[in-house]
Amino acid sequence: MSQQNPVFIPGPTNVPDRLRRVMDMQTLDHRAPDFADTFQPVLAGVKRILKASSAQVMLFPASGTGGWEAAITNTLSPGDKVLAARYGMFSHRWIDLCQHHGLDVQVIDVEWGEGAPVEQYAEALQADSNHEIKAVLACHNETATGVVSDIAGLRNALDDTGHPALLFIDGVSSIASMDFRFDEWGVDIAITGSQKGFMLYTGMAIVAVSEKALQAMESARLPRCFLDFRDMLNANAQGSFPYTPPLQLIFGLSESIKMLEEEGLENVFARHHRLAEGVRQAAQAWGLPLCAKRPELYSDSVTAIHVPDGFDATALINHAYAAYGVSYGVGLGEVAGKVFRIGHLGSLTDVMALTGISTIEMAMHELGYPIQLGAGTAAAQAYYSKTRGELRAMAA
Amino acid sequence: MSQQNPVFIPGPTNVPDRLRRVMDMQTLDHRAPDFADTFQPVLAGVKRILKASSAQVMLFPASGTGGWEAAITNTLSPGDKVLAARYGMFSHRWIDLCQHHGLDVQVIDVEWGEGAPVEQYAEALQADSNHEIKAVLACHNETATGVVSDIAGLRNALDDTGHPALLFIDGVSSIASMDFRFDEWGVDIAITGSQKGFMLYTGMAIVAVSEKALQAMESARLPRCFLDFRDMLNANAQGSFPYTPPLQLIFGLSESIKMLEEEGLENVFARHHRLAEGVRQAAQAWGLPLCAKRPELYSDSVTAIHVPDGFDATALINHAYAAYGVSYGVGLGEVAGKVFRIGHLGSLTDVMALTGISTIEMAMHELGYPIQLGAGTAAAQAYYSKTRGELRAMAA
Amino acid sequence: MSQQNPVFIPGPTNVPDRLRRVMDMQTLDHRAPDFADTFQPVLAGVKRILKASSAQVMLFPASGTGGWEAAITNTLSPGDKVLAARYGMFSHRWIDLCQHHGLDVQVIDVEWGEGAPVEQYAEALQADSNHEIKAVLACHNETATGVVSDIAGLRNALDDTGHPALLFIDGVSSIASMDFRFDEWGVDIAITGSQKGFMLYTGMAIVAVSEKALQAMESARLPRCFLDFRDMLNANAQGSFPYTPPLQLIFGLSESIKMLEEEGLENVFARHHRLAEGVRQAAQAWGLPLCAKRPELYSDSVTAIHVPDGFDATALINHAYAAYGVSYGVGLGEVAGKVFRIGHLGSLTDVMALTGISTIEMAMHELGYPIQLGAGTAAAQAYYSKTRGELRAMAA
Amino acid sequence: MSQQNPVFIPGPTNVPDRLRRVMDMQTLDHRAPDFADTFQPVLAGVKRILKASSAQVMLFPASGTGGWEAAITNTLSPGDKVLAARYGMFSHRWIDLCQHHGLDVQVIDVEWGEGAPVEQYAEALQADSNHEIKAVLACHNETATGVVSDIAGLRNALDDTGHPALLFIDGVSSIASMDFRFDEWGVDIAITGSQKGFMLYTGMAIVAVSEKALQAMESARLPRCFLDFRDMLNANAQGSFPYTPPLQLIFGLSESIKMLEEEGLENVFARHHRLAEGVRQAAQAWGLPLCAKRPELYSDSVTAIHVPDGFDATALINHAYAAYGVSYGVGLGEVAGKVFRIGHLGSLTDVMALTGISTIEMAMHELGYPIQLGAGTAAAQAYYSKTRGELRAMAA
Repeated sequence: MSQQNPVFIPGPTNVPDRLRRVMDMQTLDHRAPDFADTFQPVLAGVKRILKASSAQVMLFPASGTGGWEAAITNTLSPGDKVLAARYGMFSHRWIDLCQHHGLDVQVIDVEWGEGAPVEQYAEALQADSNHEIKAVLACHNETATGVVSDIAGLRNALDDTGHPALLFIDGVSSIASMDFRFDEWGVDIAITGSQKGFMLYTGMAIVAVSEKALQAMESARLPRCFLDFRDMLNANAQGSFPYTPPLQLIFGLSESIKMLEEEGLENVFARHHRLAEGVRQAAQAWGLPLCAKRPELYSDSVTAIHVPDGFDATALINHAYAAYGVSYGVGLGEVAGKVFRIGHLGSLTDVMALTGISTIEMAMHELGYPIQLGAGTAAAQAYYSKTRGELRAMAA
Repeated sequence: MSQQNPVFIPGPTNVPDRLRRVMDMQTLDHRAPDFADTFQPVLAGVKRILKASSAQVMLFPASGTGGWEAAITNTLSPGDKVLAARYGMFSHRWIDLCQHHGLDVQVIDVEWGEGAPVEQYAEALQADSNHEIKAVLACHNETATGVVSDIAGLRNALDDTGHPALLFIDGVSSIASMDFRFDEWGVDIAITGSQKGFMLYTGMAIVAVSEKALQAMESARLPRCFLDFRDMLNANAQGSFPYTPPLQLIFGLSESIKMLEEEGLENVFARHHRLAEGVRQAAQAWGLPLCAKRPELYSDSVTAIHVPDGFDATALINHAYAAYGVSYGVGLGEVAGKVFRIGHLGSLTDVMALTGISTIEMAMHELGYPIQLGAGTAAAQAYYSKTRGELRAMAA
Repeated sequence: MSQQNPVFIPGPTNVPDRLRRVMDMQTLDHRAPDFADTFQPVLAGVKRILKASSAQVMLFPASGTGGWEAAITNTLSPGDKVLAARYGMFSHRWIDLCQHHGLDVQVIDVEWGEGAPVEQYAEALQADSNHEIKAVLACHNETATGVVSDIAGLRNALDDTGHPALLFIDGVSSIASMDFRFDEWGVDIAITGSQKGFMLYTGMAIVAVSEKALQAMESARLPRCFLDFRDMLNANAQGSFPYTPPLQLIFGLSESIKMLEEEGLENVFARHHRLAEGVRQAAQAWGLPLCAKRPELYSDSVTAIHVPDGFDATALINHAYAAYGVSYGVGLGEVAGKVFRIGHLGSLTDVMALTGISTIEMAMHELGYPIQLGAGTAAAQAYYSKTRGELRAMAA
Repeated sequence: MSQQNPVFIPGPTNVPDRLRRVMDMQTLDHRAPDFADTFQPVLAGVKRILKASSAQVMLFPASGTGGWEAAITNTLSPGDKVLAARYGMFSHRWIDLCQHHGLDVQVIDVEWGEGAPVEQYAEALQADSNHEIKAVLACHNETATGVVSDIAGLRNALDDTGHPALLFIDGVSSIASMDFRFDEWGVDIAITGSQKGFMLYTGMAIVAVSEKALQAMESARLPRCFLDFRDMLNANAQGSFPYTPPLQLIFGLSESIKMLEEEGLENVFARHHRLAEGVRQAAQAWGLPLCAKRPELYSDSVTAIHVPDGFDATALINHAYAAYGVSYGVGLGEVAGKVFRIGHLGSLTDVMALTGISTIEMAMHELGYPIQLGAGTAAAQAYYSKTRGELRAMAA
């Protein structure tokens, strides 16, 4: 009887009925002449969402991890140096993936809860006078800590130092939920997945690639085939795929883009901000600090909340699931057991967010947390109630 | 973006995915030899839910109103006297339906918020020494006021006076959510619909009929054909229908019965009681009285709550819908504008109930109700949290 | 493994995915202010499909039989005389329903396989100089025999004799598949169901009523409540329903109308004619006569085919189902065992029709029918192939 | 109006409603403690389908091409020699993938329409006295030509020569439709996808790996991360995944395995054989040769049929799609334009197969092919009719 509760993991997100209906499809022939009629507009739509008019977009039947791999294997060669910072589990894993592929990763370690350290990136780029660094990597939104980073700042760091390195950005848990400006930020490769802001099932890596990255591809020697950009682009140019495409997710993406654009992209971002702020108001009422160190780092798609000393955040999540059938994100890596995460991205309303807030509040209460039952919920209610008027136009 | 919010109308209820999947079916031939394989067990299952081992169960492609009509047209003749009390919109409408069919309805009017007045029924039966009253009608659960009535008491009134009248009970918003004892209470016809406790789409009247009512059928002269018991029973006896059956809903009902029995019928009732009590705790915290006059009248499937003087309950409901995309029941008839209703029957969890409570609370706050924002939600949280342990076994 | 085979019963028809998706819906509040936004256009759309600009359209949560009952109980009084012909199981059942309600039915019996006998109707009307006949009933398409009748001829018979009787037409298996001209034919009440040409699940009677029939309602004394026109019209006028409406089917109907109008109504009729003619070509190749006596009686939505003497059509249908998992219509009533029926209405393509033809051909072959295996299929293929070009424009 | 026609491409296959229902799911938390309850039995079920009790099974969110890549990158090192034959587009593409990864592929080219040339493999292995060949690759069922190969023969070739090379088999279009014996044939890695015999959507590579292949993994130096066996096995051992798993397809696979085992695996294979043989009877009646050279090479999941000289098979496929909305497989690579393919795997019945046969027959007729309209269909009907009895038990 818990099947209709929303999930509050930071992806896969709740799948709205409108998308479920589209994805509940009969088999179509991907080689039929009319597949291209859906496919090309989808690619164009992704560009609008990413504000990436200059990019080539590719859709791989893979998870976001496959997108990470595609980014580096198509543009780099064994032993190439890349610059990356580690400030959460997902920035860590991307670094690990690079190392699997024999890249020389210059890692900047910062405390989890911080974002991409723009100054340290700048210093490293400045120091790299021989331009050995071929690519700069960062997670726009570190899903493990609920931290958003300043990608425009990284671009400035590159520009200020005149460094030619490529800029690769993981936008897995930001794209389609938070503002992402591929063109303006001079991103060379952006990666996301179908199961986050696009509100679809897991299984499709969405990759946007700049002209500069495509040029780098010409000399890249890391081996790849399944995730090869050139094979994909050649096939796509003819409206086809190098192998069986994930038709279900492509049709789902087509509808997802329609939904996002009907709501209005800026309205989508404003909705996520409002949902997130309600969660943060609740955390404040509980007296629990966020993992993100400062307001400018607060993510609008996921909030990681520190539990008090002596409490185990993983036990809390397990309890909430066992007692109420509601899922939240556990702490990962360095913050395992120390934080729990409330995902508030994708198909979510203010009243669904209240469900997430009030339920974890009951779970904390039951485990003896020093919080006042109802306080966080009331804080969120007050915030949602006060800011309600601002968003009515979007509901239409 | 409000499509995933639950509804809190007292039916149609939220349809769980498990039932949506079954009802999302391809066309099957209802005359194929194997339809009976599903159909007969469904009839048996309905009997178990109604605790009606002695009854004949019939399924009509109609709403509950069709069930009311079937009950009277199959057992009564023009001008027959029936005894009924009016204590809400639905008991009123059934009376009206009887009058449409030319029955002589002896109406006991009681204040809305009261239940079926057992003593007044008893007095009327006592006074009817010629046994002109052919049937006694009552709503087990008056959906308009959130009042449950004492059907066992009505049976006692009949038995104590030795009155042979038939006992017809509307169980539309109680059956499959609250305990209903067809056999034990000596009910002659019970009526419900697919869209309440059975959690299906609207469109099927479910009618259980006693042997005594079937005997009355032999002399009944009210005209009917579409809702004729005899045609239905004759066809059903051969595994068929007198016309195209509502296959989708019959297959849905088959699965619904499985779900109810897997949870355990007594657990289903206990869950509804717990959900309802949380809503009542919230109302108390708001300082708002229930429409139901006394605790023994409190319905476990729907709660009608009085708004303070000077406030318009309909405006509240409209505001909650416009502002948050959440539906509640309006007040109907005599209590229009005076009460709002929270439906908490069918596929609902405690955390979904919190959504309903916290949202109407925000709506009241925004309209200037003299309530403390968060108070009702906190009261419900406290109750759900405290009673959580009792229900864990059911979730399995 | 037979679940994906189409059905060839003459309703319920195959439900296309597009309609299944719409009907697989979450619960919405039928009292929410925006229900009317969908509901009123649906009523308007039904009028376009029936070419009934002058009519009031009502949607009852009932089967077509409920529609029959609504027609007579809302317009007639006990003992009223109605004129009807019996030329198949469904015209028979409507007569039976009238008799259940105490009407005096003047029955014209004609051989099954004939259509509504216009001349005999005319004679009866002519003879009724006192205008005791209050209503004339006919099935536009007798589903049991695959016979279409001349409704314009009945109107002429009424007009020529200056007879004021109402004209009630069962269009259950014609409307939305074959041309139906409510206004032009001067129909007073037309009835259909959701599960035929509209390609939805069973459970909604669709009734169109003329101004003249609404006037007759004023004096009608047959009792009714569930199917009362006045209650329905009053509620509908406010965008609501007298009871819980069949929301799923109303939303389905909205989409169904869109599908029909996107294809183009005349194209829909032409498609049905082409599908039907292919089936008739197959029957001719088998040397099996149609139940319909003459080409002008041939139905475009269902074909009833005579089996040779000494063969049992019901056994054939059962064999086809048992051996291949494909459903066809059995013979009913007078033609039980003598004919089998291929339904070819609703969501069907030429290649699906071939499936139906080739499968029943195998079944006949296996039971020793004197037919040449493949002959009927080849005849249908030749016809579909030859006429293919005519319909290409519609596929778009 | 063509949306309900089945597809006859050799995958993605028609998705049965039972699997669509399971895959039309709400979001579940893959980190919730009960995911493992579904996941581990799925892995066990895949082993039963592949008759691979000794294998480790892994599920990657990727297409079959990802499975190919996983096989080689996890077991081989740059420059390693592999032995493969090219006898169709898919064996060609796997070779190409190996070359992308810098492997030294010893290619045996044989005429398309032949299968894996066991003798030539044996000779190559015999000649490789230094055991430089690290892996032997073959497609069990070459989807492009409709040719099944003798994998047991390849095993014998390895055993007879005492060669220690690994044996990697593409079973993409055979597994779950045709008999595949991982253990008995001594396969080291077998690869398939979700969208073929398992009847699911595209997006999951299913890989079974022997103990010997896992040992080879220890020294493999081809870079990989997304498709890394070790990361996957480590995570799976704890009931989790190294990244977001394709939950929808895993739940679908769980149900697919149930369906296959309820039908009975040997019955599934027999059904495919019967469906295929009907298609072959049709081809024979048309006088069109198969691409597969000899009966022992005939695939039971896809049939490639040669068009007569002077005809363009691709134009035929396009015409069938444009005229009838039915999809077939085009010829690929060396046989482009020369063959068309009828896929008959997955969720298909005999009567659906007839649809595919009769439709392409009409298309050929319309393009002036020297065939007799109806002849192929009649031949298939005769075969299906004659062999019907053999399969009845399976339908249950």
